[in-house]
Amino acid sequence: MAPQYKLTYFDIRGLAETIRYLFKYGEIEFEDVRIKHENWPPLKDSTPFGVLPILEHNGKVVGQSIAIARYLGRKVKLAGENEWENLEIDAVVDTLNDMKSKLSAIFAEKDEAKKKVLIEAVKKDTFSFYLPRLEAIVKKNKGYFALGRLTWADFYFATVSPAYDLVTGEDILASYPNLKSVREKVNALPAIKKWIEVRPKTDF
Amino acid sequence: MAPQYKLTYFDIRGLAETIRYLFKYGEIEFEDVRIKHENWPPLKDSTPFGVLPILEHNGKVVGQSIAIARYLGRKVKLAGENEWENLEIDAVVDTLNDMKSKLSAIFAEKDEAKKKVLIEAVKKDTFSFYLPRLEAIVKKNKGYFALGRLTWADFYFATVSPAYDLVTGEDILASYPNLKSVREKVNALPAIKKWIEVRPKTDF
Repeated sequence: MAPQYKLTYFDIRGLAETIRYLFKYGEIEFEDVRIKHENWPPLKDSTPFGVLPILEHNGKVVGQSIAIARYLGRKVKLAGENEWENLEIDAVVDTLNDMKSKLSAIFAEKDEAKKKVLIEAVKKDTFSFYLPRLEAIVKKNKGYFALGRLTWADFYFATVSPAYDLVTGEDILASYPNLKSVREKVNALPAIKKWIEVRPKTDF
Repeated sequence: MAPQYKLTYFDIRGLAETIRYLFKYGEIEFEDVRIKHENWPPLKDSTPFGVLPILEHNGKVVGQSIAIARYLGRKVKLAGENEWENLEIDAVVDTLNDMKSKLSAIFAEKDEAKKKVLIEAVKKDTFSFYLPRLEAIVKKNKGYFALGRLTWADFYFATVSPAYDLVTGEDILASYPNLKSVREKVNALPAIKKWIEVRPKTDF
């Protein structure tokens, strides 16, 4: 039987990797479609808002990577047991997303000198503000981002946090052992470990 | 009995108004705490990430306005009946939020000439891209943003869309009757109509 889910994104980890991790963790088959950049312009207009990833299921199409991750997190039992617990997960994910959005100017900057200035500003204003607070949250939650146990928020962090090192060229989590351990724990889950071994090798 | 929820924000509609609408719609009592800007600096460090709104309930505190709105949307039965339906709601809310995030540079710009340039760019690149697509979604969904019926996505749009006019000084939805009607329908709900009459009068 053909997979019931079709995920379309570029041939990178990027915004789709949380989704791929959740499919793998839940042993849900999916079609992992990877569009080459040169093939994207003619396809763009056929997507709901001209952006990827999109997920197709039962003849329906949706976008928005975090919304898709939440859906799968619930499906594979990495969500809360009541709505307040789900709110705790959602709030920390949106905070991680707020932090990540402050890195986008660095990705966009092509001038190396200007990029260096932006990186220093992000280290000083963004990382040094958010990371100690997030580290304290993980410590309080017994090594996880919410509920004192593994949730899809940890999957989100494990797949998004490599961008911190990528934009700065540094080991940004070096002084945050609890945060680092979240990523290591997720990546050591048998299904994820196996996925990391076999997934397409891409730069980010 | 004291309300079981305490919402803390500034004395504006802003990011908290979706939440207030949902409390009112569901007839859930809440303490509507409004911090004056001059009293904010000493309070800032006591919040999880130095930002408002925050919601307190049963001795716990969470931030993130959209996450809180989702929680309340489910509580007051303005959510989906299964997880795919919830994904459809979440995806359109995140798309509205993507569009809104492109307005923030206008809010921040103090120079009137530069502000005008930014407004024209937003009209050309953002509104003219998103609004026709959103208009088509609402038309397809029988006058709502998702599921062919009233959901918390409509509440989000009703409370967020006045910002489009505020930043541009124009009636941005004038040529989008379906979008305009979503706002009107939400604002005409008896509990919301009453809230609009009695709520504190603020500029935005």
